[in-house]
Amino acid sequence: MKDLDYSKAYRLFYPAVPVVVASSYGGKISAMAVVTAVSVSNVPPRVGFASLQTHSTYRTILSSRSFSMSWLDRSLAREVELLGSKRGKGVTDKLRSVGLKHNKGRVLEVPVIDAAVATLECSLVNVVALGDHDFVVGEVKAAYAQTDFSGYWQFKRYKPILYVGSPDRLRMYDP
Amino acid sequence: MKDLDYSKAYRLFYPAVPVVVASSYGGKISAMAVVTAVSVSNVPPRVGFASLQTHSTYRTILSSRSFSMSWLDRSLAREVELLGSKRGKGVTDKLRSVGLKHNKGRVLEVPVIDAAVATLECSLVNVVALGDHDFVVGEVKAAYAQTDFSGYWQFKRYKPILYVGSPDRLRMYDP
Repeated sequence: MKDLDYSKAYRLFYPAVPVVVASSYGGKISAMAVVTAVSVSNVPPRVGFASLQTHSTYRTILSSRSFSMSWLDRSLAREVELLGSKRGKGVTDKLRSVGLKHNKGRVLEVPVIDAAVATLECSLVNVVALGDHDFVVGEVKAAYAQTDFSGYWQFKRYKPILYVGSPDRLRMYDP
Repeated sequence: MKDLDYSKAYRLFYPAVPVVVASSYGGKISAMAVVTAVSVSNVPPRVGFASLQTHSTYRTILSSRSFSMSWLDRSLAREVELLGSKRGKGVTDKLRSVGLKHNKGRVLEVPVIDAAVATLECSLVNVVALGDHDFVVGEVKAAYAQTDFSGYWQFKRYKPILYVGSPDRLRMYDP
């Protein structure tokens, strides 16, 4: 076993399914792809993800106190990759800028991606400082999915993106 | 899109790579498989995972103030599944009880699984209450991996487990 540079330890967690986090405030639509989204509580239902404080989406979430989480099929891997590589600064609608149409949430004023296979609408609960990233925690206020989710994902119509890291950001894990 | 029972929202996050969290205290070896392990900071290097407070491993970590995280190849999926389904109560060495040999860590007094493809040795930083689970945060004090990890995982010798949830706990995602 060879020693690793600690600051690269995050790559051990790959492959991971990227989740698109989106938020809107004052007419601005912010969005980013995260590979650190997890469920942290079932009752009450809560989810979280790690974010740099400098992310445009992070700041929009602090203002709006809400965000959506969306899962996208691997046919949209390029759009998800663009969310990760394009800067949000000066862009009024980050989702449309990468070709992702959206509408308002069912319960909260959050952008919901039309093409998502599943979406959670979340109200902000807490932001926990954990180092160079903060952990953003939200409570689920609405949850819905396409019919491929029947108790569990069936993976018949939904094929998840399995992000393995750079240098080729579009490369996916394929057993 | 059909509405989901909020308390089942955690299943949207599948497939996920299970990570084995292990800790020792007073001669007892505790371990569990988690699907909520993520990197939360690069500098300082920190990782976290969600756990019920009632887990034996959670209590051992609070006593020892340390834990290891290990990644296992899919050839060991059955052992990882056993960690999830067997109770830890009354078992002195949970890892050996499912057939996983281990030794002491390089830097910390944590159990490190011999067959792991990568391991992080972590000191406990914080436990954050987030609902019915706590989020356990550790700082990386040692990190090492097999040669399949070269900058990133190459997935030539290491084939990750991709957990998709019950009812068949050994079923894995296969694109």
